[in-house]
Amino acid sequence: MQITSESSIEVSTFEWPAGFYTDAGHAGLKKGADDLGWLVSKVPADAAGVYTTNQFQAAPTALTKQTINLAHKLQAIVMNSGNANSCTGVQGTHDAAAMQKAAADKLKIDSNLVGVASTGVIGEQLPLDKIKKGIDGLGLTKSDDVTKAVLTTDTHAKTITVTCLIDNKKVTLTGFCKGSGMIHPNMATMLGFVTTDAAIEGNQLQGLLSETVNQTFNQITVDGDTSTNDMVVVMANGQAGNDSLTPSHEDYPTFVKAFKLVLSHLAKEIAGDGEGASKLVEVNVAGAYNALEGQQVAKTIVGSNLVKAMIFGGDANWGRVMQAIGQTTAHVDLNGVSVSINGIQMVKNSLAADYSENEVAKTLTEKMVTIDVDLNAGTDTGTAWGCDLTYKYVQINASYRS
Amino acid sequence: MQITSESSIEVSTFEWPAGFYTDAGHAGLKKGADDLGWLVSKVPADAAGVYTTNQFQAAPTALTKQTINLAHKLQAIVMNSGNANSCTGVQGTHDAAAMQKAAADKLKIDSNLVGVASTGVIGEQLPLDKIKKGIDGLGLTKSDDVTKAVLTTDTHAKTITVTCLIDNKKVTLTGFCKGSGMIHPNMATMLGFVTTDAAIEGNQLQGLLSETVNQTFNQITVDGDTSTNDMVVVMANGQAGNDSLTPSHEDYPTFVKAFKLVLSHLAKEIAGDGEGASKLVEVNVAGAYNALEGQQVAKTIVGSNLVKAMIFGGDANWGRVMQAIGQTTAHVDLNGVSVSINGIQMVKNSLAADYSENEVAKTLTEKMVTIDVDLNAGTDTGTAWGCDLTYKYVQINASYRS
Repeated sequence: MQITSESSIEVSTFEWPAGFYTDAGHAGLKKGADDLGWLVSKVPADAAGVYTTNQFQAAPTALTKQTINLAHKLQAIVMNSGNANSCTGVQGTHDAAAMQKAAADKLKIDSNLVGVASTGVIGEQLPLDKIKKGIDGLGLTKSDDVTKAVLTTDTHAKTITVTCLIDNKKVTLTGFCKGSGMIHPNMATMLGFVTTDAAIEGNQLQGLLSETVNQTFNQITVDGDTSTNDMVVVMANGQAGNDSLTPSHEDYPTFVKAFKLVLSHLAKEIAGDGEGASKLVEVNVAGAYNALEGQQVAKTIVGSNLVKAMIFGGDANWGRVMQAIGQTTAHVDLNGVSVSINGIQMVKNSLAADYSENEVAKTLTEKMVTIDVDLNAGTDTGTAWGCDLTYKYVQINASYRS
Repeated sequence: MQITSESSIEVSTFEWPAGFYTDAGHAGLKKGADDLGWLVSKVPADAAGVYTTNQFQAAPTALTKQTINLAHKLQAIVMNSGNANSCTGVQGTHDAAAMQKAAADKLKIDSNLVGVASTGVIGEQLPLDKIKKGIDGLGLTKSDDVTKAVLTTDTHAKTITVTCLIDNKKVTLTGFCKGSGMIHPNMATMLGFVTTDAAIEGNQLQGLLSETVNQTFNQITVDGDTSTNDMVVVMANGQAGNDSLTPSHEDYPTFVKAFKLVLSHLAKEIAGDGEGASKLVEVNVAGAYNALEGQQVAKTIVGSNLVKAMIFGGDANWGRVMQAIGQTTAHVDLNGVSVSINGIQMVKNSLAADYSENEVAKTLTEKMVTIDVDLNAGTDTGTAWGCDLTYKYVQINASYRS
């Protein structure tokens, strides 16, 4: 049997790729917890990003987009939680630039190599003095504190390290993110960062990121709202020493697969840690007319408040899945739809199948719920992830600022 | 001062218009409450309807649409709660027709003059024997029991009677509806019925209904889901003796105004009685590029889970209103948006205005919350209604069938 480089892909214990350093600290934006940190590469890295589609793009998000688009290069990203620097006008734009400059000065690099990310309350001006003082205290370590410093209502840090062989050299990809509320298709309140020591040129990385985000981060939904601040940024510093990755490189499929593994793991982590969530929900749609419609139907089902509440209650009311399908404009064989919940077929040819209600109800007590749908209208598929709608979601969002 | 017929419009105590009879009874579909009823006109009435946009249109909805479209005439509508007769296949289509025929036979009229409406659980076959026996027991009364027999998770019946003068004759319009869950733009789980003794030709009535529904029922949202069963049906039996209403009739504006009053009252009643709702929310958008965008922005704000949860919690987090505006594709002056909550300006030129947090919080304890937005991008407006997102919503929908 031939050993392909793809078989070298492994999820490993957390570590930063070669040549990446980080640190985090408490700048005083959140009570008692780290709220400021950075990610630094020893050399300028190739970089790519995707950004919120919300019309009110926060100042740091706009600045980072502009910075990356200059030359697809970053050497550092500085980030804070506790304040989103969003809907803060000219002052906000100025403050984001000042935060970028403070990090650049401390690192003695060009401001155009520094990304900025903020998350937290919208509409309050950034306490710039605290931020500057905080940045001044940051060092270059191998700790994972920065993965916690970006959290808001998340219940835990979300990280993954994947290794693989490219040109027979060990390549490491390490990603982390914050999510929780407002997680919806198209980049809701979510910050995602992926570091890798692979060599891959910026434009190439941008294409790969955009494509992979559409299949992962943009297929999760917690509450249907999209935020003003969110982005996913990738930095690839080439320290692994492989030949630069392009589609014609024989190990390119290995890197793509490892990269998708990192992003889909983080996306699922966000969905499962949605505000107040008690269950991760995965919806797989088959028989779609095309991939776009498969994704649309999967997202509509996983985003339906009625479906989400029924999953919280452990009530296998499949009519709500049908109703969600019917809300879409996707091609559907109206008399040929199948629905299974946790592997038990509940709907066949758009009618109730012969199932045991108790058996289904029992599976709904698990932490993971899978809904499989066949639209019988084609051969394409789509997958989306979300969570249940719980009392706790309402509680968290009824008093977010308190 | 000239007395116009418009000044004759009055909301009066509940009564049926001339020539309308109803009855309701317990057929055994719901526990202990009336679950079957009808609405009968002494003569065939001109009729119009609007129907769910869900791809899975329930059998009774499809049948009523087909029936009305024959000649825009109805003499009766028979309706039940407790079972939606939806996702019930060929059997469901047969049962809806059998329900129609049973009512026609009992009334000794043509089946093509009978509409059918069902609401309740999706995916279970209609217990036709119970329905038939129930219809056999219905009489012709002036009671309002039918307005209760259609309810599901509604907490109270929703009715309104409006009178006005057309050709100096008293015209009565009486509407009722059921709503609660799955109330969203485009006719979610909602049945609405309007009866009037005005004379107005069917096609004319259809145009007026479609237009008015877009400004009323389609501007309410409870949870963003649309159901398979919903419709609004109007019957106008001409018993008031006015000249048939057309746009050239001098009292036509009076009728239009009275008709819109009926529909907007019912729409607001549904929004305020959304599942688990504790507050009615009204969003008024001004400065819209066009009316469609005004409506879109109003609906997006009122439909945002984050906005809904913050209203439940009495937390005036205006950033969530901005974030909802930014999610739309509407024209927005990104540096010129104003937002007021309960009349207190919180955002000016897209930045925090000078307001007292306590003062706003105090107004959020009221049962009605008004959000006024100015997009500063044009001169059109839009309004939408919804409710807050509460623990009770989750509770109701976690175990709807139990």
